[in-house]
Formats: sequence, structure tokens, C-alpha cells
Amino acid sequence: MIIYESNKSWLRDVKHLYRSYTMQKIVRSTLWVGAGMALISYLVIDVFKLTHWRIETGTFSLLGIVLSILLVFRTNSAYDRWWEGRRQWGNLVNNCRTLAMLLHAALPASDLPSRRYLAAHIANFCLALKEHLRGGVKINELIHVSPEEQALYATKNHLPNYIATQIQVQVQEKVRSGDLTGEDLINIKMHTQTLLDVAGACERIKKTPIPFSYNVYLKLYISAYTLILPFGLLPDFGYAGIGLIMFIFFAFIGVELMAEEIEDPFGLDCNDLPIGDIAHTIKQNVYELLEVGHPEETRPKELYQKVF
Amino acid sequence: MIIYESNKSWLRDVKHLYRSYTMQKIVRSTLWVGAGMALISYLVIDVFKLTHWRIETGTFSLLGIVLSILLVFRTNSAYDRWWEGRRQWGNLVNNCRTLAMLLHAALPASDLPSRRYLAAHIANFCLALKEHLRGGVKINELIHVSPEEQALYATKNHLPNYIATQIQVQVQEKVRSGDLTGEDLINIKMHTQTLLDVAGACERIKKTPIPFSYNVYLKLYISAYTLILPFGLLPDFGYAGIGLIMFIFFAFIGVELMAEEIEDPFGLDCNDLPIGDIAHTIKQNVYELLEVGHPEETRPKELYQKVF
Amino acid sequence: MIIYESNKSWLRDVKHLYRSYTMQKIVRSTLWVGAGMALISYLVIDVFKLTHWRIETGTFSLLGIVLSILLVFRTNSAYDRWWEGRRQWGNLVNNCRTLAMLLHAALPASDLPSRRYLAAHIANFCLALKEHLRGGVKINELIHVSPEEQALYATKNHLPNYIATQIQVQVQEKVRSGDLTGEDLINIKMHTQTLLDVAGACERIKKTPIPFSYNVYLKLYISAYTLILPFGLLPDFGYAGIGLIMFIFFAFIGVELMAEEIEDPFGLDCNDLPIGDIAHTIKQNVYELLEVGHPEETRPKELYQKVF
Amino acid sequence: MIIYESNKSWLRDVKHLYRSYTMQKIVRSTLWVGAGMALISYLVIDVFKLTHWRIETGTFSLLGIVLSILLVFRTNSAYDRWWEGRRQWGNLVNNCRTLAMLLHAALPASDLPSRRYLAAHIANFCLALKEHLRGGVKINELIHVSPEEQALYATKNHLPNYIATQIQVQVQEKVRSGDLTGEDLINIKMHTQTLLDVAGACERIKKTPIPFSYNVYLKLYISAYTLILPFGLLPDFGYAGIGLIMFIFFAFIGVELMAEEIEDPFGLDCNDLPIGDIAHTIKQNVYELLEVGHPEETRPKELYQKVF
Amino acid sequence: MIIYESNKSWLRDVKHLYRSYTMQKIVRSTLWVGAGMALISYLVIDVFKLTHWRIETGTFSLLGIVLSILLVFRTNSAYDRWWEGRRQWGNLVNNCRTLAMLLHAALPASDLPSRRYLAAHIANFCLALKEHLRGGVKINELIHVSPEEQALYATKNHLPNYIATQIQVQVQEKVRSGDLTGEDLINIKMHTQTLLDVAGACERIKKTPIPFSYNVYLKLYISAYTLILPFGLLPDFGYAGIGLIMFIFFAFIGVELMAEEIEDPFGLDCNDLPIGDIAHTIKQNVYELLEVGHPEETRPKELYQKVF
Repeated sequence: MIIYESNKSWLRDVKHLYRSYTMQKIVRSTLWVGAGMALISYLVIDVFKLTHWRIETGTFSLLGIVLSILLVFRTNSAYDRWWEGRRQWGNLVNNCRTLAMLLHAALPASDLPSRRYLAAHIANFCLALKEHLRGGVKINELIHVSPEEQALYATKNHLPNYIATQIQVQVQEKVRSGDLTGEDLINIKMHTQTLLDVAGACERIKKTPIPFSYNVYLKLYISAYTLILPFGLLPDFGYAGIGLIMFIFFAFIGVELMAEEIEDPFGLDCNDLPIGDIAHTIKQNVYELLEVGHPEETRPKELYQKVF
Repeated sequence: MIIYESNKSWLRDVKHLYRSYTMQKIVRSTLWVGAGMALISYLVIDVFKLTHWRIETGTFSLLGIVLSILLVFRTNSAYDRWWEGRRQWGNLVNNCRTLAMLLHAALPASDLPSRRYLAAHIANFCLALKEHLRGGVKINELIHVSPEEQALYATKNHLPNYIATQIQVQVQEKVRSGDLTGEDLINIKMHTQTLLDVAGACERIKKTPIPFSYNVYLKLYISAYTLILPFGLLPDFGYAGIGLIMFIFFAFIGVELMAEEIEDPFGLDCNDLPIGDIAHTIKQNVYELLEVGHPEETRPKELYQKVF
Repeated sequence: MIIYESNKSWLRDVKHLYRSYTMQKIVRSTLWVGAGMALISYLVIDVFKLTHWRIETGTFSLLGIVLSILLVFRTNSAYDRWWEGRRQWGNLVNNCRTLAMLLHAALPASDLPSRRYLAAHIANFCLALKEHLRGGVKINELIHVSPEEQALYATKNHLPNYIATQIQVQVQEKVRSGDLTGEDLINIKMHTQTLLDVAGACERIKKTPIPFSYNVYLKLYISAYTLILPFGLLPDFGYAGIGLIMFIFFAFIGVELMAEEIEDPFGLDCNDLPIGDIAHTIKQNVYELLEVGHPEETRPKELYQKVF
Repeated sequence: MIIYESNKSWLRDVKHLYRSYTMQKIVRSTLWVGAGMALISYLVIDVFKLTHWRIETGTFSLLGIVLSILLVFRTNSAYDRWWEGRRQWGNLVNNCRTLAMLLHAALPASDLPSRRYLAAHIANFCLALKEHLRGGVKINELIHVSPEEQALYATKNHLPNYIATQIQVQVQEKVRSGDLTGEDLINIKMHTQTLLDVAGACERIKKTPIPFSYNVYLKLYISAYTLILPFGLLPDFGYAGIGLIMFIFFAFIGVELMAEEIEDPFGLDCNDLPIGDIAHTIKQNVYELLEVGHPEETRPKELYQKVF
Repeated sequence: MIIYESNKSWLRDVKHLYRSYTMQKIVRSTLWVGAGMALISYLVIDVFKLTHWRIETGTFSLLGIVLSILLVFRTNSAYDRWWEGRRQWGNLVNNCRTLAMLLHAALPASDLPSRRYLAAHIANFCLALKEHLRGGVKINELIHVSPEEQALYATKNHLPNYIATQIQVQVQEKVRSGDLTGEDLINIKMHTQTLLDVAGACERIKKTPIPFSYNVYLKLYISAYTLILPFGLLPDFGYAGIGLIMFIFFAFIGVELMAEEIEDPFGLDCNDLPIGDIAHTIKQNVYELLEVGHPEETRPKELYQKVF
């Protein structure tokens, strides 16, 4: 995700346009369409002299309204995924903090092994989930994992599930041994459950893009719309119409491409969520709350820098 | 559901247009309208010479705005059903995982019969629900069901309800026998409840399409709109207007047909949810979490292939 | 509610147009407007010759946009009520099933009197709620009610409340007698609570239509808009403009009347929710889950038939 | 709130237009604008003869679209407040009923003093909250309050908070004395909590109107828009344009004023929520559920009457 | 936040326009655009005489619709943040009140030290969270903090987390010592959890503005749109078109700048939430509910005054 301060200076943000891959892609495809239109204009105006084929602006408005409305739907559904992904990771932050708080209050201050075990497993759940959503867990990125555990982890189909289960098993054992009470079990269980809920919700967002028909329909529509635009604008504007067509195309393609980018918010695109950062924040918070030391320096982020 | 990677290449998705039945249907009905319009144009222009009957573009814009707004409503309500169906099945995934995790932590590791019994019943609930939403449970698709149970299952009106109840009964018996505690009962009960909640929510989505009046009104409106379009476009464009009418019809009919398709998301249409796949994923996860073996190979899916 | 299969055949649904009272009403009022406009046209064109009084299409578009936007608001708020009503009754289904499941698992299999008592009360709650939302509970529709109970029921202002309370009282007594545990009480209480929550939510939907000002404003606006339409369309179209005015009126009045119809979803209009059917389904489910017999035949519904 | 039956007769509602203060205000300000426009028209047409200063309809459409979209935002955010207020009071109804039901089932039937104490406090909470949202609690409106309690109540900054706390204190004492169990405490606590949640949510709605900038911006925009309208309509229509300007102004001002009215739904405006009525309904329900007598006659409401 | 009474007088609010920084900024940038346009107009009309370069209004409408739709998205997503921030702080109010109520009912009336300790920590959590969201906790603003605690607090990365944990630790100790029961622990735990949930949700809102691409795209679009406006309006209006361009620019820039302002609702901008006020209200409420004295005068706020 590109970090920026909103509400400062109008032009400063625009100057950093090229930090965003999607803005690059939009600008580039607009230029390609401009080139194509230049060719078409030459054919229409000078070669075949078809400028009497003319579509009224009203028709473009009507078709443009339908298209706009589809793009609203596209944008909203994509943004909802992005924002729900953000909310899920926000939940994860809250949930891990609460879990750590409850364990800190309920476990004896002296039971350092359990505290370390649980802190490491909560942190590892987040680290594992992050890569699970990106293509596959990187076991060597996890912390405090012994080689035997690494070998065991490698056999699991769904590692985040397994790590969460280990937390619940550990808590249940503490209940059996009398270190924790039945009420603690009820309180803590809600939060191991939420670990799995967040994981499942993120998988759902990742695996369910907008239905295929909508995707294809929109692309077909934008392509067809752009192809009939010359018959609306060239008769009046001549070659100057190319600029206008490029602007209109920029309007529609921009909305579509930005929607595509944020639809899957867990990747490494420049507008994707900084779930790597969030996972590290959770790790820090959990260690601080459980009062078991874990040195971690915070590094300041540069504005407009991409962070993951 | 058709699997595809979003955000890759603009034209690649469009080339697979014909994978989607709905896109086929849209293109086909647009061609039929084109044929009908050719006939009407011939009658209007050459036979009855009515091109002085002429409706201004402004009127079409006004009527088109009302129509667009109705289509937005249609699209949103259909998509909400589709997405809520997806969320419910996501809930089911999370819930079954959590249920398995809780049972794994609470049951003695040695109590393999209970583990197998519960794993099979959770998996069977999902498999039964899937077919329950599609026309009727296929009892022979369920796993680890003895012939007597098959006979019993066949007498039940609502099999998913019955299977969920068996899970709750088994848990309550374990509580009575002292293997589980009262706190476990409170924790686990939330998840047998969610099984029924998901089943009920999916039934609701399936059984409640958009009110009949809206359905009929929209079809009437689109038909009437298309029928007056020639009086708006033929006077200016002549036969070339047929192409424009087809495009406008394509715009409106496409939105309506795609909405109809995703409105009932549990069928076998090409944009329907892959609830078969999800049920199998749950089966695998539950067996892995409860640590009772159940061999299941994963098969990679081809891109753009329809999966159910 | 009119039952229909969506996504089958375009024209089949339109042919059943007259099954919907609202569609009848829309078509009828459009014809009346047509008649009125014929008179106005005669006066404007032939008697007073006012065709030089002429309002541009742009003005109608502007006013039409405001109106469309109001109608979107109207449609969405009405549909939200309808859909929330459906969700509440879906909740009721889920809740009654879960309540029956919990009671079945927790009560001794031999305690048939309690099972019958509770099954009858859950079913009666739903039957009473249905009529409570329609004008007044019909006590003789309830099942297994002794004459003394009937007399008692007749004295209650809010019968569904009373029936739900009886369930809670019965459960609490079972807890006192030791048949149920404190954990069972916590588990079951959530579901007697939901009974009251659903009843309250349905009362809220029923008693709170859209604010009066919006209702009046919209009717005033549509009336005024229709009255100035002749000055926009007659100058160009002459008598043929009557058809266009009727179409535009059809567009606006249709959206308003359909919204009015679904706003109170618990009545007996043809698009209202089939809460009678749902109540009977719950009765069946509850008896099946509690394993106390209650013969009830299911009758197949004809397509496009109205069911309540 | 004005009570009316929706979906009956088109013109009957319009005839009662003047029952709504806001409709009066809209009509009145539209007439004032008409008078102002008559003056401007006279100056523009006959005194300064400026009818050649002319703005195209397209420009008004463009500016009108932006305005419409802002008004949609305004309407939705105001209506959300109104509807959330209604939902909160619906919650309060459900919650008080459930609280009464739980207390009725858990308290010994013979403990009439506790029942009376709790019934009075639940009812008083609602009565106090109603006036708390309107300007200050009227202590003499509360029921069964001894003079000493009245003096005590008068010292409290936040009386609803205090009354809810008294309920919780009473319940906790019953737990300490053994009349209620720990499970009852868990069950009942959720509902004393909801009392405070509803109070807080209503305070939030009341104290947070739409941000000041939006409020001012909209008023500025509507004023400026109305002031340039003459240059769009007078050149074509002459004095007849005054009617059209009034209609357009009516469209925009109506939406804004209705939104302003429902934004704070707890006052005594004619579209505000009937929270007085609701509080009295709760009082009745609670006394009936706890089976302690409290005579209260129900009075039928006239249609279109304002009730508070 | 600027306090104002809605729904009183139309012009009174407009006169206070300059209380809002954002309105100042909008007016100022509109004036700058006016100046720039005057120059461009001079160049276009009198120097280069380009008034025959002319873009139809239809094109502006089309582009304006896309822009409006983007601005709707912008406004809604910004307002959602603002309103969710308000809801979170509303939650915090409710939650702190309920926590105080539960502690008041459960703790012995004589245990003043615990009451004071918990009241101070709840109040400090809110005070710390407020500044945590604004740039860094000001430890000397907290109440009843001993110098040793101040030193300890200064070492914490996330002070609100730490304070909430102290509350939970204190409660757990009271449970261990028998002053509170296991049921109290379950009841109270939900509210220490909510403290962390609110903190996390506010951090999420603060740290996640709208994706960078949308931000840049919108600014680019508005700039480009304004730059081509002269070719649409100058040919018809000449120098008088400057006014119209300023109005159109005012429409678009206003929506964008107001959205930017409310997007981060926790700052000190004039439309930001009065979280300082809310934190002080909570402090007062908590002390009143726990019945430990804490003198605090309430100061009336002037209308239209900015409060933080």
C-alpha cells in the first residue's frame, strides 16, 4: 500500500502519480487508445471520408449512463472487498490483543513458558495467514519454531488452522491442570474462534472475485463503446476529437482498472493492504501485552513509499 | 462457477466469453432483436415510410434513466443474494473448523470413535445441505453411513436438521458422561446452532426471489422501450440504426439477465457458487483438525473451467 | 406471495402479469391517465390551440432526475422493509429449529409431556405472531390449546409475548427440578429471547412506514410532473404524444406503487411474504426435531399461485 | 409522528398535506421564491431587457446532477438516523420485554415487591430516556417514585444511567441472597447493558447532525442554483418561466427540508418518532409480563393525527 | 466539530460559512480558478481568438456524470469513516458506562480503593486513546497517575492497550480474592474487550484512507475537466462564462474537499469529531456511576463555536 497524507496539498499527490502501477497502466492504455484513434481518424476522415456517419451525443449519454451505473456497481463491490479485508485484519489486531490481555491477566505471572508459547503461536498465526493469502506459507518466516515443528508444519494442508488449534489445545490443557478456570475457557474460546473466522473471511474475499459474466460484460461494453465514439466526435471535432475520446476512455478504463486492482486486497499491488506490516504490529503488541520481551525495532516509513 | 484470474490481461477474459451461458444468452437474444429490428426497419422505412414519426433523444434519456435505476436495484438485490450466499458458506467453513478445533481440544485424544463420528457428521451436514439446496439430498453421497442409517435418513423431511441434531445429542451425551464439561457445552452449542442458521439463511435466499411485480415490470419496461426505439433512431440513421438499437438492447438485457442468473446462487449455472467444492474443503479441514485420517486427493482446477 | 421460477423464459412471466394486483393497478391507472390526457390534448390542440406553450425536454430530464432519485430512495427503503421482514422470519425459522434441537438434546427422551408442551408452544408462538401482524390473533387457529387456556389467552393484550414467556417459565422450572442444568438455561435463554426480538422487529416494520412528508411529497411531485408533461410532448407529437405520456407515467407510478405494496410485507397482498406457510413449516420442523409425532401433509404449490 | 395507512388511495394522502409542518414550510418557501422570481422577471424582461443573457439547459442539467447526488447523500444520511433511531427504540421494546420475561421466570411468583420495583424501574427508564432526548427528564412524569427518590433523582446528571444501574444493583443483590443464580446474572446482565446501549445510541444520533460544511454547502448551492435559473428559463418562457422555476425549487428545497426534519428523530416535529407512545407500550408490556397489575386504558388513534 | 442547531433558519447557517475551514478553502480555490479562467479567457477570446474550438454540452454532461459518480463514491466512503468513528466513540461511551455499572453493582460499596482505581483507569483509557489518535499520548493529561506510573507509562509503545490490561488484571485479582465471581468475570470481560476493539477500529479508520490511486485519479480528473471547460462555455458566453466555470468548479471541488476533511475524523479540523468532549463526558459518567466523587463543572458551548 502506498502511504500518503490526505488533505494536504492538491498538486503534491498528483506529482506522485507514477508511484501507482494502476495509474501507470491507465495512462499507458489511454495513450494506446489515442494512437489507435489517430489511425481510425485518418481512415475515417481522410481515407474513407465517413464523417457523415454520425451518432448524436444523446445516444452516448444514454449508453454512458448504463456504463457508469455498471462501473458504480463494479467499484462498490471491489471497494467492499478491500475494506472488508481491512476490517478483517483490524479484527485480527483487536482479537490478538484481547487474547493476549486475557491470557496475561489469567495466567500466573511466573508461568513464562506458557506465555512465550502462546505469544509465539499468536504471532505465527498472523505471519502464516499473511503468506497463506499470498500463495503459500513460508515456514522459515515463522518465529521460535523448532526444526521438528518445522517438519510437522510442512505436512499440514492448512497451517493457520493448525496453529490456532494448538493455542486452543494449550488453553484446554491449562484448564485441565487447574491453572485456568472454566470461565476463562469460555472467555478465551471466543478469540481462538475469531482467529479462524478471520482466516476464513480472508479466504472468501480472495477466492471470490466478481462473477465472470460481469467481468466480461464490462470489458466488452467499454470496448464497444470506445469503438463507436469516433462516429460521435470526429464529425464535429475532426482530429481534435482524439483528445476527447482519450479523456472519455480514461474516465471509464480508470474506474474499471482501479476496481480490478483493489478487488483482491491481499496481494503485493501498490494499493493492496499492508498485511505484512499489520502482522508485525500484532507480534509486537502481543509480546508487550504478555510481558515477555521480544526486541523489534520500528522503522519509520517514507511518505509515498510502497510498504507491504 | 467459472474460475478466472482477475486483473491480468484485458482481452484474454473477453476471448472466453462463451464459457458463460449467460453471455451466450445475452449475445443470442441481441442477435434476435437485431433480426426483428431489420424487419421493422424495412417496414418503417421502405413499406410504410413512417420516418417522420420521430421521438426525440431526450425522451429516451429520461425513460432510460428510470430503467437504469431499476436495473441498479435489480443488480444490487441479486448480487446481495449471491454475496450473502457466499458469506453464509464462508460462515459454514469457519464454523465447521471451529467446531472441529473445539472438539479436538476438548475430547480425549484417545476417543477415536467419537472423533470419527463427529467428523463424519459435520462433513455429512455440508454435503447434505449442498444437495438440499439443489433439489433433494442424495443419501448415497454421504460418507460413513451404515445401511440402517441410510434407511432412517430417507424418512426425514429435513435431513440437514437431523444431522445437526445428532451432533448436539452426541455432545450432550459426552457432557452427561463427564467427558465434556458444562463450559464445553456452552462453547460448542454456538456452533451447532450456526449449522442450522446457515441452512436456514440459504433456504431463505433460495426461496425468496425479487417480488414478482418487479420481475414482470422490468421485462415489460425493457420490451416496451425496445419497441419504441426505432422511432427514435431510424429517422436519423436509417438501416444503420439497427446496430445502435442492438447495442442499447444489449446494455439493458445484459444487466437483467446477469442479475437473474446470480439471484439463485446455489444452482449449477456457470456463475453459481462452487458449494460442492466448499463442502469438500470443509470435509478435508475437519478430518485434518480432528486428526482422524481421511484420504482425499486435491485436483488442480483449470482456469476458466466451470467447477461445481 | 406469488411463487414463480426466475430465469426461465422471458415472455412466460409477462403473460402472468395479471396475477399481481399491483401490476393491474399500475396498468389501470396508466389507462386512466391516458384517457385524461386525451381530453387535455383535445383541449390544448384543438380547442385552445396552445401548442406554442412548450417546455424543453431538458427541463423534464432535470425534474425527472430528481424524481428518479426520490423513487430510488422510496424503492430501497420499501424493499429493505420487505427483505428485513423476510430475514426476521428466516431468523424465526432458524431459532425455532435450534430451540427444538437444544431441547431435544437436553431433555430426557422419556419426558414426552414436556416435549409436547414445548413443541406446541413454539408452534403456537409462530401462528399467533402471524395473525398478530395481520390484525389480531385467532385463538382457535392455535394447536393443542385447552378451553381454559383459550379463555386465558383471550385476556392477554400481547399473546405472542405471553406464549414465549410460558416457554421460558417451563424451562426455568425444569432447571429448578434438575432436569436441565444452568448451562442449558444460558443456551436456551438466547432463543426465547430471539422469539421476542423477532416479534418486536416485525411490529416495528409494520408500524413504521416511510415518513408522511415523503409519501405526500412524492405523490404531489408525480401528479405535478404528469400535468406539465403535455406542454413538453404535445407540441411535437400531437395526439401521438398521449402514448409517450402514458409510458412515462407508467414508469414513475409503477415504481411508486410497487414500493407501496412491499412496504408492509406482512399483509395478504400478492407480493407479501408467505408468513402463513413459514409458520406451518416451523410447526412441522419443530415436531420432527423433538421427535413427537404431528401428522401434517405437505401440499405442492402451483407456479404463479398466490400463497399466504 | 403522523399516523397514516399507506397504499390505500392516491389522493386521500395528498389532501392531508397540511398536517405536515414540513410540507407547509416547503409550499410556503416555494411561494416566496415565486414572488421573488416575479420581481426578478420583471426586472430582467421589462426593465433591463436582459433576455439575451442565456444559459443552456445542458449546464443546468450538469449542475442539477451534482445537486441531486448531494441531496441523495443528504436524504440517505438523514433517513439512516431516523431509521436507526426507530430501530434503537424497537430494540428497547424487545429488550424490556425480554428482561421482564426473564425476571418473571426467574423470580419466585410470590416476590411481589421485587417484581413491582423492577417493573417500575424498567418503565421509568423508558420514560426518563424519552425526555432526556428532548431537553431534560421530567421527574414528576415517572411512576411510583417516592418524594425522597424524587429529590435523589434531581441530583443526577444522567438519570437514565442511574435508573438502569438500580436495576442491575437489585439483580446482583438477589444473586447474593440466593434468589437468583449466577446463570441468571449472566442472562439478565445482557439486558441491563442494552438499556445503556440504546440510551447511548440515541444520544449519538441526537448530538451528531451531518457535518456543518455539508449543511452550509448545500444551502449555498441551492441558493446559487435558484439565482441563475432565471437566465436559463426566462429567455424562452418569459413570465411563464416563473412556474417552472418554482417547480424546480420545490423539487430541491423539498428534499433538503424533509431531510432536515427527520435528521433529529426524537423531537416533537410531525415526522418524528412516537417515542412517547413507545415508552407507554413498554410500560404496559412489562407490567403484563411480570404479572403485576397496572391499569392503563388504550386510546385509539385517529388517522392523520399527530401523536407523540 | 462545529456545533449548530439544524432545521432552524435557512440563512443563519450560511452566514456562519466562514467558521468552517473547508468552506474557506473551497471558496478560496474557487476564486483562484476564477482568476486563472479570466486569464485563459483573455487568451482564448482576445489574443488567440479560439472561440471556434468548441465542445458540446453533451460531452461535459457525459464526463460530468462519471465524475459525479466518483464523487459519490468518495463522499460515501469518507462519510462512512466519519460516521463509523462516531459510532465507535459512541460504543466507547456505552461500554464505559456499562463497565462502571457492572463494577458498581458487583463490588462491595465499601471497597473505595478499587472503585477509585477502576474509575481512574477507565477515564484514562479514553483520554489516552484520544491523544493516541492525534499524534501521541500526553501522559500529564491523565488523571490520578503517580510519578512512578508516569515513568512506567512512558515506556509503553501502546498505552491504551496497557491501561485496559490493567483493568482486566485488577478484575481477575478480585476474582481470585473472591470479591467477584466467575460470572462477574464473564460479564466484565466483554467490556474490557470492547475497549481494545474500539481502539483498534479507530486506528484502522485513521490509518486507512481511500486507496492512493482513487485519490490521484480524482484530482487528475477534476483538473483536466476544469481545463477543458473553457472550450465548452466561452464560445457561447464570452467573459460571462467565467462565472459559470467557477460555479461548476465549486460544485466538484467542494465535494472532494469536504470528503477529504471528514475522512480522518479524529483530528482537530472543524468538522472532526469532538472526541475530547466525549472523553470528558465518559470520565464524568463513570465517576457518577461508581459513586466516587470527582468534581467537574460543565461549561455550556456557544452555538457555531468549534469544540474539540
